[in-house]
Amino acid sequence: MKQYIIINKDLEMSPGKIAGQAAHASVGFTYSYGDEDLAVFDWFNYHAQRKIVVGLTEEKIRNAMFKLTEEKIPFYVVRDTGKTEVEANSLTAIAIRPMSNENTPKWFARWRLL
Amino acid sequence: MKQYIIINKDLEMSPGKIAGQAAHASVGFTYSYGDEDLAVFDWFNYHAQRKIVVGLTEEKIRNAMFKLTEEKIPFYVVRDTGKTEVEANSLTAIAIRPMSNENTPKWFARWRLL
Repeated sequence: MKQYIIINKDLEMSPGKIAGQAAHASVGFTYSYGDEDLAVFDWFNYHAQRKIVVGLTEEKIRNAMFKLTEEKIPFYVVRDTGKTEVEANSLTAIAIRPMSNENTPKWFARWRLL
Repeated sequence: MKQYIIINKDLEMSPGKIAGQAAHASVGFTYSYGDEDLAVFDWFNYHAQRKIVVGLTEEKIRNAMFKLTEEKIPFYVVRDTGKTEVEANSLTAIAIRPMSNENTPKWFARWRLL
């Protein structure tokens, strides 16, 4: 069981900023979708917290969001308030529903670790 | 309202690894303490998701954990399974209870952003 988190590498963010956005994405996902599918979340959160953080251009993130929507895979989008390193409303990160290896779409394999 | 996340800067971790650990810490905190104090979490999660990511040596993290315990401020500790960049059981990150500016201890101000 693992959760993919995608960081927008078009933005110039410090390692700390990136870490904060990844945390937002992952927490945001659990708050938005946790109730809906609690069995998955309990298992994921207590026994197998694997997180894969990848970096993609914004264009590739948008394509990914389109395909995820098509394949009915929920994800959570983080937009920044623009108070620190990036412009307001920038798409900084997305967190995808935790999935088992078997359920992970093959096209995720093209992504590069950040 | 903001949440401090402390990253162990003694470990050599990539930006993606750091981001994953920060996400673990923040999600882990909400799962461990969210029920206890739900009003805070709702407010924090839906309206004011500010996260401050700082880097400290492991020794300073241990001192911080001691002081947090003394001051009864809950925190969540992430230890790595050791499958990728660091040794098993390494202390990689901690996430502290989200707090308002007034409730944030003065000694947090010494920490440097990552």
